[in-house]
Amino acid sequence: MKTLSLMMPLDMHLHLRDEEMLKIVAPLTSYSFSGAIVMPNLVPPVTTLEGVKEYRHRIKEAMEADDFEPYMTLFYQHYSREFLESARDHITAVKIYPSGATTNSEGGVVNFDIEPMRETLEAMSDLGIVLCVHGETMGFVMDREAEFMSVYEMLAVNFPKLKIIMEHITTREAVETLDKYENLYATITVHHLMITLDDVAGGMLRPHLFCKPIAKRPHDRDALLKIALAAHPKVMFGSDSAPHPKHKKESCGCGAGVFTAPIALQLLCEIFEENNALENLQAFVSDNAQRIYGVCPEYKEVVLVKRDFTVPQMYGEVVPMRAGEILRWSIERVD
Amino acid sequence: MKTLSLMMPLDMHLHLRDEEMLKIVAPLTSYSFSGAIVMPNLVPPVTTLEGVKEYRHRIKEAMEADDFEPYMTLFYQHYSREFLESARDHITAVKIYPSGATTNSEGGVVNFDIEPMRETLEAMSDLGIVLCVHGETMGFVMDREAEFMSVYEMLAVNFPKLKIIMEHITTREAVETLDKYENLYATITVHHLMITLDDVAGGMLRPHLFCKPIAKRPHDRDALLKIALAAHPKVMFGSDSAPHPKHKKESCGCGAGVFTAPIALQLLCEIFEENNALENLQAFVSDNAQRIYGVCPEYKEVVLVKRDFTVPQMYGEVVPMRAGEILRWSIERVD
Repeated sequence: MKTLSLMMPLDMHLHLRDEEMLKIVAPLTSYSFSGAIVMPNLVPPVTTLEGVKEYRHRIKEAMEADDFEPYMTLFYQHYSREFLESARDHITAVKIYPSGATTNSEGGVVNFDIEPMRETLEAMSDLGIVLCVHGETMGFVMDREAEFMSVYEMLAVNFPKLKIIMEHITTREAVETLDKYENLYATITVHHLMITLDDVAGGMLRPHLFCKPIAKRPHDRDALLKIALAAHPKVMFGSDSAPHPKHKKESCGCGAGVFTAPIALQLLCEIFEENNALENLQAFVSDNAQRIYGVCPEYKEVVLVKRDFTVPQMYGEVVPMRAGEILRWSIERVD
Repeated sequence: MKTLSLMMPLDMHLHLRDEEMLKIVAPLTSYSFSGAIVMPNLVPPVTTLEGVKEYRHRIKEAMEADDFEPYMTLFYQHYSREFLESARDHITAVKIYPSGATTNSEGGVVNFDIEPMRETLEAMSDLGIVLCVHGETMGFVMDREAEFMSVYEMLAVNFPKLKIIMEHITTREAVETLDKYENLYATITVHHLMITLDDVAGGMLRPHLFCKPIAKRPHDRDALLKIALAAHPKVMFGSDSAPHPKHKKESCGCGAGVFTAPIALQLLCEIFEENNALENLQAFVSDNAQRIYGVCPEYKEVVLVKRDFTVPQMYGEVVPMRAGEILRWSIERVD
């Protein structure tokens, strides 16, 4: 039977939430990944050194594996150089959200003026702290990411030594921008490699595929697929796996997020195999991220096998993508 | 207090369903409208003369008003001239659906080849039976209507005496096509004058605003508003009010349709007043339709007053658009 071994998979964009939800979802990621960039959009957001340490502690407690590193992040505020120096050893990145752009982003940035951000971003640049960006304007939903490209360009030009991650990119425009500046990188989710707006709202309305940024057009998905399958050296896998309880996801006015953590590697195997690119999956799910972020994850080998796997209807109270459907790859074992 | 009198309002695109749902929704329309084009997409669809007569009888029974005329329609099939001649006095229009385009459209047309349709459409043209068209391809959800324009053009050119209604138009492209051919007309819903995709999926996901065709871009809405507010002589109000039970609308994979029947006139007053076009509302909600369809509805005068009206949370088991919100116009009385 066909097998694939993935060394030290990394999820470079992950929502673990807190409390009961954290206990459900953390083990699902720590089982098959060596590490993950953990997003700080809790309520209230993670903005203090104490907050980072305590959240990391809760994550480690919720996990059932020692061989997993939660790479911690701060929710962007205008931080002083002094504070960032003290935080340096405890965080990997700072995540910036436009205010109101997604779940729990209300305390985010209202407008992207360079000057008020200069001290923080220069200090981050000097200290080697990565900037993760949720790149959407407040414009029309299908245009929000494309409209944000000018902000990425402004950040890239003004802080040329700062590593800037265009998070969960969804458009052809973002793919084009990626190569314009040396210090721009990107994460791509597994669901944005698979779905378009048609899957969310083209037939029935499907709340479990509703996420931000929303899935775009077929040509956008094709552009993402092209660089992911090639394991473009500036691109990393980041699931943006975001659990919401079933009752909230299916009630009127559901929150945004697709839950993929426990099935992401299996889905990626399917996609990369279908496109004859399995040999590039290792770089997409780990090597690129190690090089871009300069992280050295602990040893973990995930062996996948081409054997049908039926996705559970629920993990705890969370409905995963493809619930009840059959995937063609399974995780055989983790060494 | 500001009042507006509307004479013989007509809803030129309405879903009344059947059985219990029919009993809930029919009186809500017959209260404030003089007549409505009743869509035939029941399960099974209305395709026989007997079916038309029986459905009309059930509608009349469900209504609480004698001064309302349900203008009956047949679900498009390749009908013979002989059949259409026999049906002529019992129907106003034939509605054509692309197969799978919307609720209960599975028996619709798979492709729009002229030749197999010629006998039916020529007979309709000769007999003065109107053709109502759900104009969407099976393409990407945001492009489906624009892609359908070539079908409208082909129909308009091949059957120049046939009155063709572009139903519930949602795009700038449809507005542009309207004036290219003398025999093309259009209906516009009230919700497509108000919402864009942003309202459906730009913030939270809002199933009660999910409909087909899906709401498009701001520039599309602006194009619709422009011709509606001007009461463009080829444009009529058609609510496309489509009730779904709350539990189905809010569960995973909800059906498409916005329920506006009992609040449509109030909303239209708001929109037309805000845009200083109240004097054109009479033409948009009745006069244009009377002229285009050649119908002479019975006398009904609906007096609206500018007084706050709180939209009920539910009508029976159906959640209306704007549930629980306050509208600025109320129906004062119906004479």
